[in-house]
Amino acid sequence: MGVLGDAVTQFLIPGCALVGIGFALLQWFLVSRVKVSEDVNGYHGNLMENEDREEGVDQLDAVIKCSEIQNAIAVGATSFLFTQYKYLSIFVGAFSAIIFLFLGSVKGFSTESEPCTYNPESLCKPALANAIFSTVAFLLGALTSVLSGFLGMKIATYANARTTLEARRGVGKAFITAFRSGAVMGFLLAANGLLVLYVSINLFKIYYGDDWEGLYESITGYGLGGSSMALFGRVGGGIYTKAADVGADLVGKVEKNIPEDDPRNPAVIADNVGDNVGDIAGMGSDLFGSYAESSCAALFVASISSFGISHDFSAMSYPLIISSIGIVVCLITTLFATDLSEIKNVSEIEPSLKRQLLISTVLMTAGIATVSFFALPSEFTLYNFGTDKVVKNWHLFCCVATGLWAGLVIGYTTEYYTSNAYSPVQDVADSCRTGAATNVIFGLALGYKSVIVPIFAIAIAIYVSFSLAAMYGIAMAALGMLSTIATGLAIDAYGPISDNAGGIAEMAGMSHRIRERTDALDAAGNTTAAIGKGFAIGSAALVSLALFGAFVSRAGITAVDVLTPKVFIGLIVGAMLPYWFSAMTMKSVGSAALKMVEEVRRQFNTIPGLMEGTAKPDYANCVKISTDASLREMIPPGALVMLTPLVAGTLFGVETLAGVLAGSLVSGVQVAISASNTGGAWDNAKKYIEAGASEHARMLGPKGSDAHKAAVIGDTIGDPLKDTSGPSLNILIKLMAVESLVFAPFFAAHGGLLFKLF
Amino acid sequence: MGVLGDAVTQFLIPGCALVGIGFALLQWFLVSRVKVSEDVNGYHGNLMENEDREEGVDQLDAVIKCSEIQNAIAVGATSFLFTQYKYLSIFVGAFSAIIFLFLGSVKGFSTESEPCTYNPESLCKPALANAIFSTVAFLLGALTSVLSGFLGMKIATYANARTTLEARRGVGKAFITAFRSGAVMGFLLAANGLLVLYVSINLFKIYYGDDWEGLYESITGYGLGGSSMALFGRVGGGIYTKAADVGADLVGKVEKNIPEDDPRNPAVIADNVGDNVGDIAGMGSDLFGSYAESSCAALFVASISSFGISHDFSAMSYPLIISSIGIVVCLITTLFATDLSEIKNVSEIEPSLKRQLLISTVLMTAGIATVSFFALPSEFTLYNFGTDKVVKNWHLFCCVATGLWAGLVIGYTTEYYTSNAYSPVQDVADSCRTGAATNVIFGLALGYKSVIVPIFAIAIAIYVSFSLAAMYGIAMAALGMLSTIATGLAIDAYGPISDNAGGIAEMAGMSHRIRERTDALDAAGNTTAAIGKGFAIGSAALVSLALFGAFVSRAGITAVDVLTPKVFIGLIVGAMLPYWFSAMTMKSVGSAALKMVEEVRRQFNTIPGLMEGTAKPDYANCVKISTDASLREMIPPGALVMLTPLVAGTLFGVETLAGVLAGSLVSGVQVAISASNTGGAWDNAKKYIEAGASEHARMLGPKGSDAHKAAVIGDTIGDPLKDTSGPSLNILIKLMAVESLVFAPFFAAHGGLLFKLF
Repeated sequence: MGVLGDAVTQFLIPGCALVGIGFALLQWFLVSRVKVSEDVNGYHGNLMENEDREEGVDQLDAVIKCSEIQNAIAVGATSFLFTQYKYLSIFVGAFSAIIFLFLGSVKGFSTESEPCTYNPESLCKPALANAIFSTVAFLLGALTSVLSGFLGMKIATYANARTTLEARRGVGKAFITAFRSGAVMGFLLAANGLLVLYVSINLFKIYYGDDWEGLYESITGYGLGGSSMALFGRVGGGIYTKAADVGADLVGKVEKNIPEDDPRNPAVIADNVGDNVGDIAGMGSDLFGSYAESSCAALFVASISSFGISHDFSAMSYPLIISSIGIVVCLITTLFATDLSEIKNVSEIEPSLKRQLLISTVLMTAGIATVSFFALPSEFTLYNFGTDKVVKNWHLFCCVATGLWAGLVIGYTTEYYTSNAYSPVQDVADSCRTGAATNVIFGLALGYKSVIVPIFAIAIAIYVSFSLAAMYGIAMAALGMLSTIATGLAIDAYGPISDNAGGIAEMAGMSHRIRERTDALDAAGNTTAAIGKGFAIGSAALVSLALFGAFVSRAGITAVDVLTPKVFIGLIVGAMLPYWFSAMTMKSVGSAALKMVEEVRRQFNTIPGLMEGTAKPDYANCVKISTDASLREMIPPGALVMLTPLVAGTLFGVETLAGVLAGSLVSGVQVAISASNTGGAWDNAKKYIEAGASEHARMLGPKGSDAHKAAVIGDTIGDPLKDTSGPSLNILIKLMAVESLVFAPFFAAHGGLLFKLF
Repeated sequence: MGVLGDAVTQFLIPGCALVGIGFALLQWFLVSRVKVSEDVNGYHGNLMENEDREEGVDQLDAVIKCSEIQNAIAVGATSFLFTQYKYLSIFVGAFSAIIFLFLGSVKGFSTESEPCTYNPESLCKPALANAIFSTVAFLLGALTSVLSGFLGMKIATYANARTTLEARRGVGKAFITAFRSGAVMGFLLAANGLLVLYVSINLFKIYYGDDWEGLYESITGYGLGGSSMALFGRVGGGIYTKAADVGADLVGKVEKNIPEDDPRNPAVIADNVGDNVGDIAGMGSDLFGSYAESSCAALFVASISSFGISHDFSAMSYPLIISSIGIVVCLITTLFATDLSEIKNVSEIEPSLKRQLLISTVLMTAGIATVSFFALPSEFTLYNFGTDKVVKNWHLFCCVATGLWAGLVIGYTTEYYTSNAYSPVQDVADSCRTGAATNVIFGLALGYKSVIVPIFAIAIAIYVSFSLAAMYGIAMAALGMLSTIATGLAIDAYGPISDNAGGIAEMAGMSHRIRERTDALDAAGNTTAAIGKGFAIGSAALVSLALFGAFVSRAGITAVDVLTPKVFIGLIVGAMLPYWFSAMTMKSVGSAALKMVEEVRRQFNTIPGLMEGTAKPDYANCVKISTDASLREMIPPGALVMLTPLVAGTLFGVETLAGVLAGSLVSGVQVAISASNTGGAWDNAKKYIEAGASEHARMLGPKGSDAHKAAVIGDTIGDPLKDTSGPSLNILIKLMAVESLVFAPFFAAHGGLLFKLF
């Protein structure tokens, strides 16, 4: 037994979660002090800058416009999410039925207790209970995921105009507003995810009692629910946002030569709505899914180890305690950005965000050491594919810490390859001199190259944690990488909020200077978004390996031997799935963007006075095109991911399915990292030329030069790569793994029909 | 024992090889009857078409120009290859030493006989003999590979101008000239590869006698030699050709608005030289490498099976007999294209080439059945990772036939995705309406999608042949896919020859009509080049799996379990290598192209009268830039591929290396197929708009329209994808596998230093 008593654990976990929620609400309150609709002169009037007066920008008018635009974006985003949730509720209902039927049928819906799988001497609850509770956990996971996305969207659409308005008071103020709003999302999500999981476990325990094997097996449904919502959120939101973005850019920037986010562009509202439903809500669901899955994977593996068998609740809750401490660590980290220092210059934005990563990692390392010492017994045994493995508490510290630091390495590498402060992006920008083709060639090469360091970081994390604590080590490494999720999400959500703020500044006709500030915030946001995706992908790789291990244990396989034909064909087909999936999502964005282009062109051609700014475009039609496209087009890729494990497991059996999971994991990680970094680099190469901050950049610019046009083409190509297919791929790999784990009892009992027939 | 006696086998194999060589020489003779330098009026004068007379093209002048240009291309290609070979000879010398030292050190350079690995009761030759003969086999393989590439280049540079001249007599005549020349290369290569291998085996046997295990183990060096030359040929040639092509296009087509292959463009000769050194010599070495490796893998696996132990020479030579019959089948197939039918219309070109694939596949199926019945005993046992497996002769028929038909499926799928006769390429062309960005998005999506069917075809081939005859089955499936290599190479080499012919027509100022014909030949050539790459990649996947299996056997591993950390980290790092490799090669092409652009711009700016056509550009300078870039830039990717197995095996041991091989195989196949098809599709989308053969195409065109400009950008991006990184990747996966196999005795004895230390 560890030093920490069960009572303390029972208090610590919900306590930290509530502190997180309280901190999030405090940040929300601080953001809300920036007024958008009233009290304009009282609070802001005296802060007007000279330049604004010179440019003749009417302050009151600008504030009213900001408020209107913010409202339009919020209404659009809310209405889209509600429509999406309507469709998703059908999916959730149908899939709940599938879970119940498949898992219930394992023992023919019998209500009798069975001998436990890993501890055959004692009796466990019937398979039917597993079916019911897995379904309930699935529903809870889905609900929490939707809630995470929705709340994120709400705060983002609440903060965007406030960031714009604060930009008038200086870049530091705007930065803090955007960052605080990101923090609201980060803390709400981390705390909610933890709290719901904790409460569910305690409620499930009322029925399961001492059958922890059954309890934690059905809890894995929580991860499945979270990730399946994330899939549709990412894919649907990704298609929505990029159809609008690409469509708006192709006509606006390339054909009509009007700036980005110009209010005359009919697709501009859809574009800004998209940032909130795709980058914010989708990403929130995504990281919540990773978090839920790695917790579930760790808990499941622990339940069949000595913790579970000896019913040591504190040790069993080690994954949850790590997350709890993570919330506290992130809280302290946030103060460094919001209260302990102030940004005075645009060049300080990126270093400040990078510092957040470093501070949280250093503090968390100490936190992990403390938890490992107090919560864990000094020595215990873990289940390792049929054999037992003796593990010491400092071994687990190493696992979690390796994951955490691997995350930092991935984050910093991503920053190096996507920030325009370093040579890779500058080289890409330089290649625009000879046109779009070389820009694309260099950008693709950059994305491919950016895979190397993260993969080595992941490989080392896997080797260390696997060697020290088998699959439990992997799950804990994943959770280590996600332990600072609140900070990660804060700096990630900061990006789209700044992007929106820039859009609102442009649409509200605010001064050039304000736009420059929001642009600088946005450029840093592109990098942090890429870092966030790097984290999401890295943790997804670890999570899905852990889930894969749990699946293999649960399915009763003792080895996944590449040298058997069943496994190898799974491996090669699995490695192909990320390509199939990307083909679908990219084609969807392309087709939807073509429709958007036609609509935008139609409006410019048929609405008199639109180009001159005397008539208003029909924003709603563009919103409708994006909505319809995303709802229709999210189905095929969603079906591919959801059906593959069911088909492979049922027809070809658990070995082939294991191959599919391993193949899609090792191949998907590469595609995802390269796609997301290529896109981020192109976006920032464009911003580098636009900002013209160096001699070299000015030589390539200004806006409208041939090199800039080439850069815009690269940016447009990167849009679906970085915001649709890339980030969805990490959901593909982990969702297939968690689904396989949930259905493992069914596959083990009835799978492999095709091979049985022949 | 099979029906076929050893004496017949000993006669059949060299006999078929000599027939192949004879047939190649006959085709060469037929091509040589087209005169380029003399007898202009006698042979061609009366064939001048009316249109040419109207356009005022001076026939004699055109012929003389053709001859001059052909000469310039041939001189450039020869000089580049000789320079490249000079550098390669250093590599070959150094690597021979490494092979000798590593393999010799296995038993401390002892000259005493040892108990055999698989049959410990009998004595085998010492490890030192293995070191010596492996080195010799390596040298022979390298030499044959170089010879294959060189001869291909010779015939291609001999045929290009002849094809142009024949185009004056009609598209059918031009087609036959180009196709015959391709056949020369195909038959010479297939027959040479077979003959050298056959002779080597017989010579090695003089020393080895009844020690077939040692004999066929050292013969694997032949595959290593072939593939390592192919690597440098593909990478070096690929960088050469694409630096020139991209550079020429970027200034010529995009900036100066002059047509492709315009003689005023200083990079035009380098571009045409590139087709011959990259697409012809590189591809020839590549397919020879695949052929040599699959033969060696099959022979090695067979030698440790009952064939080898009972010394049944005919059964043992089954792989070679299959290849021998393949030569005869391809000979008959060729007659269908050259003598039994005639092309009258450009629309018949592609169907005719497709028919070649189908005919050779159908005929070969019968050939395989015959060989399997006569050469094999009706039942025999194979070595299957420590266990024995009983196999019947019709099982092996199924393995070879599955590989053969999988090749056809891959070929036809590739054709569907890269030919502009079908909707995928037409959709890509259509997306050019909204600019280069959507073109690139659609093209990338097409490439990703084109992976699906080939992967399923490969997976089925693997499953069937693996289940029926273990690793021997896989090797034979690979050889089945390559059994029609002569035809495959003929239709593949036809492409660059037609491309060159078009270039020469433009440079020699021949009439518009001739250029249209060569363009049509070239468009079909883009598709056949993609098909050829599809074959190369598909067979590489099977070959490297077979080599992987042989390596695992030789290294004494009984399972490659993904669930061990050593294997898994190998798997994920291996899956990353194709990205690392592609990043290097694409960046190399990009940088070299930038240099080329600057040189071309410099010449246009500093040479007075160049644009007006009154002054000649300095072609040699551009040739030098391509040469220098390719020789310098081929070293890092080459080193990555050659060193990875040595480093992984020596430091991390055979399990991690097995993981690396499996990972790079399943990931590399996807990257290679998608890259090569994306590039092919972009090229043909551009050609579709240029040709304007349909209402839709004319709406997008003509040349110089916005849609066409967008298509040109796509084509340029596709160049390094389809001709540098994509086709090099299949060499990466098989070369690492064959290298691991050759060094397996060393790794098994001394590998895994790092894990031993900690």
